[in-house]
Amino acid sequence: MPENKGTLMNVYELQKQNDANALVRAQRADPAPGPYQIVVQVRAVSLNYRDLMILANPAQTTPRIPVSDGAGEVIAVGTGVTRVAVGDRVAGAFFQNWSAGDVSAAAHDLALGGSVDGMLAEQVLLSEEGVVRFPDHLSYEEAATLPCAAVTVWNALIEQGGLRAGQTVLLLGTGGVSILGLQFAKQHGARVIVTSSSDEKLASAKSLGADETVNYRTTPDWEKAVWEMTGRTGVDQVVEVGGAGTLEKSLQSVRDGGTVSLIGVLTGFEARINPILVLQKSVRLQGIYVGSRATFANMNRAVAQSRLKPVIDRVFPFVEAPVAYEFLRSGSHFGKVVIRVGD
Amino acid sequence: MPENKGTLMNVYELQKQNDANALVRAQRADPAPGPYQIVVQVRAVSLNYRDLMILANPAQTTPRIPVSDGAGEVIAVGTGVTRVAVGDRVAGAFFQNWSAGDVSAAAHDLALGGSVDGMLAEQVLLSEEGVVRFPDHLSYEEAATLPCAAVTVWNALIEQGGLRAGQTVLLLGTGGVSILGLQFAKQHGARVIVTSSSDEKLASAKSLGADETVNYRTTPDWEKAVWEMTGRTGVDQVVEVGGAGTLEKSLQSVRDGGTVSLIGVLTGFEARINPILVLQKSVRLQGIYVGSRATFANMNRAVAQSRLKPVIDRVFPFVEAPVAYEFLRSGSHFGKVVIRVGD
Amino acid sequence: MPENKGTLMNVYELQKQNDANALVRAQRADPAPGPYQIVVQVRAVSLNYRDLMILANPAQTTPRIPVSDGAGEVIAVGTGVTRVAVGDRVAGAFFQNWSAGDVSAAAHDLALGGSVDGMLAEQVLLSEEGVVRFPDHLSYEEAATLPCAAVTVWNALIEQGGLRAGQTVLLLGTGGVSILGLQFAKQHGARVIVTSSSDEKLASAKSLGADETVNYRTTPDWEKAVWEMTGRTGVDQVVEVGGAGTLEKSLQSVRDGGTVSLIGVLTGFEARINPILVLQKSVRLQGIYVGSRATFANMNRAVAQSRLKPVIDRVFPFVEAPVAYEFLRSGSHFGKVVIRVGD
Amino acid sequence: MPENKGTLMNVYELQKQNDANALVRAQRADPAPGPYQIVVQVRAVSLNYRDLMILANPAQTTPRIPVSDGAGEVIAVGTGVTRVAVGDRVAGAFFQNWSAGDVSAAAHDLALGGSVDGMLAEQVLLSEEGVVRFPDHLSYEEAATLPCAAVTVWNALIEQGGLRAGQTVLLLGTGGVSILGLQFAKQHGARVIVTSSSDEKLASAKSLGADETVNYRTTPDWEKAVWEMTGRTGVDQVVEVGGAGTLEKSLQSVRDGGTVSLIGVLTGFEARINPILVLQKSVRLQGIYVGSRATFANMNRAVAQSRLKPVIDRVFPFVEAPVAYEFLRSGSHFGKVVIRVGD
Repeated sequence: MPENKGTLMNVYELQKQNDANALVRAQRADPAPGPYQIVVQVRAVSLNYRDLMILANPAQTTPRIPVSDGAGEVIAVGTGVTRVAVGDRVAGAFFQNWSAGDVSAAAHDLALGGSVDGMLAEQVLLSEEGVVRFPDHLSYEEAATLPCAAVTVWNALIEQGGLRAGQTVLLLGTGGVSILGLQFAKQHGARVIVTSSSDEKLASAKSLGADETVNYRTTPDWEKAVWEMTGRTGVDQVVEVGGAGTLEKSLQSVRDGGTVSLIGVLTGFEARINPILVLQKSVRLQGIYVGSRATFANMNRAVAQSRLKPVIDRVFPFVEAPVAYEFLRSGSHFGKVVIRVGD
Repeated sequence: MPENKGTLMNVYELQKQNDANALVRAQRADPAPGPYQIVVQVRAVSLNYRDLMILANPAQTTPRIPVSDGAGEVIAVGTGVTRVAVGDRVAGAFFQNWSAGDVSAAAHDLALGGSVDGMLAEQVLLSEEGVVRFPDHLSYEEAATLPCAAVTVWNALIEQGGLRAGQTVLLLGTGGVSILGLQFAKQHGARVIVTSSSDEKLASAKSLGADETVNYRTTPDWEKAVWEMTGRTGVDQVVEVGGAGTLEKSLQSVRDGGTVSLIGVLTGFEARINPILVLQKSVRLQGIYVGSRATFANMNRAVAQSRLKPVIDRVFPFVEAPVAYEFLRSGSHFGKVVIRVGD
Repeated sequence: MPENKGTLMNVYELQKQNDANALVRAQRADPAPGPYQIVVQVRAVSLNYRDLMILANPAQTTPRIPVSDGAGEVIAVGTGVTRVAVGDRVAGAFFQNWSAGDVSAAAHDLALGGSVDGMLAEQVLLSEEGVVRFPDHLSYEEAATLPCAAVTVWNALIEQGGLRAGQTVLLLGTGGVSILGLQFAKQHGARVIVTSSSDEKLASAKSLGADETVNYRTTPDWEKAVWEMTGRTGVDQVVEVGGAGTLEKSLQSVRDGGTVSLIGVLTGFEARINPILVLQKSVRLQGIYVGSRATFANMNRAVAQSRLKPVIDRVFPFVEAPVAYEFLRSGSHFGKVVIRVGD
Repeated sequence: MPENKGTLMNVYELQKQNDANALVRAQRADPAPGPYQIVVQVRAVSLNYRDLMILANPAQTTPRIPVSDGAGEVIAVGTGVTRVAVGDRVAGAFFQNWSAGDVSAAAHDLALGGSVDGMLAEQVLLSEEGVVRFPDHLSYEEAATLPCAAVTVWNALIEQGGLRAGQTVLLLGTGGVSILGLQFAKQHGARVIVTSSSDEKLASAKSLGADETVNYRTTPDWEKAVWEMTGRTGVDQVVEVGGAGTLEKSLQSVRDGGTVSLIGVLTGFEARINPILVLQKSVRLQGIYVGSRATFANMNRAVAQSRLKPVIDRVFPFVEAPVAYEFLRSGSHFGKVVIRVGD
């Protein structure tokens, strides 16, 4: 596809703030690595709701190459680079400078595809600190699903939540975060309840291991159904991805002393909540903002051990990137939406 | 005061649901201990906002002896009792059956002065599991301030919050919880910011060690003042006691990855919050419901080590218990409101 | 078997201190429950190395009904009992008074079959606080394997160790603790390495999910083999059950910052260790002494969720209890040794 | 002192492996910063036992500029540097590449003064990731005491140990680690017991806040004295700095479920220990290897908040560096031994 490979590369750019048609193809010079930097030949990216929000954000700096999640091959390294080598298969880390530790260590001004240029490009220039090698059994398309959605839900359930076998997890919907959460929760021996408005998607969730499902369209009081499913004690953890009006129901679904992880931004959390529920049940309401590179590496060990395969709904070619965005916006997907880059 | 001591004892009872004048004096038979039970001669109780709420709660079972917090002397023990002995100076545990571990181990149907009879009586019959010995340097009046307010804020800041020296804590107001929180935070080497509408109370907080203060009446945008006081990074922990409209400001005052403990019920948390603040800063919003007996004992070791003295605003005699309630309701106190029992 | 059921019951007693033939049958009056007490009709017990050590301990108080681990049916409850009911299928808790929290909450003078009478009897009198209901899918024989070995290794790996998927666990030998550890580790998505001197037992471990095995007889430098199996980084956790000379090798097998749980007493840990290994690799060497009743309940939820079946090597009838002890002493078992009671 | 400042600088080097007189003065070219690098004008260093061990280590690579701990002023920054600026007062981090998180994130091959050149030089070339700003109230001499000893004992007591007010800490001896541990423990409201062979040093420890002291020369069974001081329950934490034969006594001094942090290398831990003590009391024996840069920064906030002053026994001029080494070796110091650089 790229006609003048070697000197110019193809990218997508957000060129105007808050423009529905802002995503346009452009060309930029091929990057060259400085000290401690690397160049990655991107092979695939995956989309998150955040990418839709950035498209719509009137405060977004432009021009900006969008998309946080991508995977590719290291094709050049600068002086001093020791963490990776040419030929390594790597994924970018959402925060380019958060190697380990608490979220306060993450500088928000180095988030790929938002405050700095992202992965929807044939080549990207990154710090050697900003990538991780991914498990051998994954394709580039599969690896591209990991940086944001998978790390976020792993961080919520496993590292912050300390999930263990025998606990019950409630997952809302069947988007990328929830389906990866389902896979990680089952990997740890937990019981999983999934909600959706589609019986077909709920059947798919069951085939991936969900123990119980609730159709929230036919069961609008789904929090009551969850309560009964848990013997009227509530679930141990909820992964709250922010659908309209779900947070209050999530708080009603959790047990005394349980955890609700806030990780989504689907509808912007317009609904406000009554904190009395948090207080009465001693709930931990925990905001989660992706995770560190160390968390990403921990997760990769788990993905490798179980040869876990991320669920991809559909892969679009590079030229159809705007279509992929629209497909994500439609909400009809199950699992992740991927764009192949460079062919 | 008790005329027929030995056979009948004086108590206060809530006799009608949701009656502003419901708190009336009555007499009951002196209790006798069964196996694993003890009788405590109550010497003092302290009041919490919860006690006002119970008075006003239309769903409260009656008749009920109110008040969760009290201290006294063990005067009788039943067969099998090994944890305490006659003559021990003890305080009651808020939850009579939560010895240790996670809040899910606490049965809410055994909360003193709410779901079971409380401490506003000359004698109380308790399980041997439901009391703790208190430090020698404390009077009964001082010990009576510990079971609810002190254990709650210790649990929030120290056990759940893991407070360590050098961190910054924001305390709202100068009620019992906040002043005890100030003392515990300073004991651990933290920096403390206190808010109040009274410069006089702020001066008192400073004399107890507060590093900085904000008058929220003269500085309505106090969250901005707090932000500046922390070099625009935010505080590590907020103890949120639930004043009208404060929670949103508390969330704006906390740092990325910080903790807001929800422990108050001052105004019933009528204000609803926007969860986007929790998400953007990866905040931990943690509901706290007092704490276990083990937490109480841990706190007592700290109180003993520093010979910490709880701050008592005023001590009322038993006959003036209703006046004590009104004094608490007025909000003009600094520290705890105590009622002496049995003299 | 019991001739005069209803008035006298059959038990085993240690009757003389440090007597190889000390385990003798005797009869005692059927117990009757006092307040907050229950009587359990024991159906099965399982043996641990501790039971052999108690038999050989010159300081053991006698007469003593031995064995910590047993399961049966509640047949009578005293006044005030609310946690269980007649007909409930329960297992005894190793420590009769450790409901939850840190090990400092456990009084060592209430350990079944050691400091107080144990389970090798047709009926036992216990506090209602000293039992837990077990999962429905387990037989009494299976449930009898849980109180000591299973709770210990669950506490070590999951609650103290925070095991998560993708980590690597090293288990020494194929006794009850190690095989239950294998099952829990696989349930959480971990990679497991097992050692044994028997290729046959290693094959059995593989069939239960072990990822890799080492025969320590044919590979005396097994710590080097483990090192290679982990890409020369070491395992995340070792469950050290105390074979002669294994601790030094365990310390050599663990990664920087890893954990070695000390839970065994097989050979009395006669070998001394060089702490420099602990220091150089920042190892956490963690002594584990069974666990609380809350830990037992957490584990039971996991056992129920995965319908996990403890591995029993052999079940002996009550009259052959001494033979069961000898079988355990021989070391030829794989999994747990059980004695059926009351038929 | 440096005659040809600007082109050559003075340093000390270990020039031959395992040579008692190996520490010699030399000159090297002034360093110039590459991308992401900085040059620090060193003003002071402090010594640790590790520095003596490196001098005596036959496997040490030479020539090597020794000493891990130093503080100075940033005098030049390379391209891309954002974390610090010229003029900043900084201390070096012991591990140059451990920014945050678990010890497994620390590459041991980047430890100052051991695997890479250290601070006993007029100028040092470091990564911008390898320094921290220190509190304003500290002199360069005081700041030079922090990187190894202070971070290590802070990590042990506060971050790994979770120390809180009311707990009891046992500190062995009055070297740099123990005296800084005393200061941090008192800052957190803990009770502190200190041992020494010198009544004079014990008196100094008392003046710094030690609650109780034991002279281990006049009380060889000091572990029994500690046991009595804690009401026969044992201390919560021991900071074990590795004197001959102390570890067994430390294990005897700690409570059930307590922690013994292994942080010292005074006598090489030649004494071996019996792990049965670890097992019986469920002790956590935790190796500590300094700490991350985030831990260093956390500690600095505490040092700043309390305006804590490290205790310096004596400051030597640069030309007397070998004398400073001998003074440390003599063991007669109380607190830290410092060498002033560059005047």
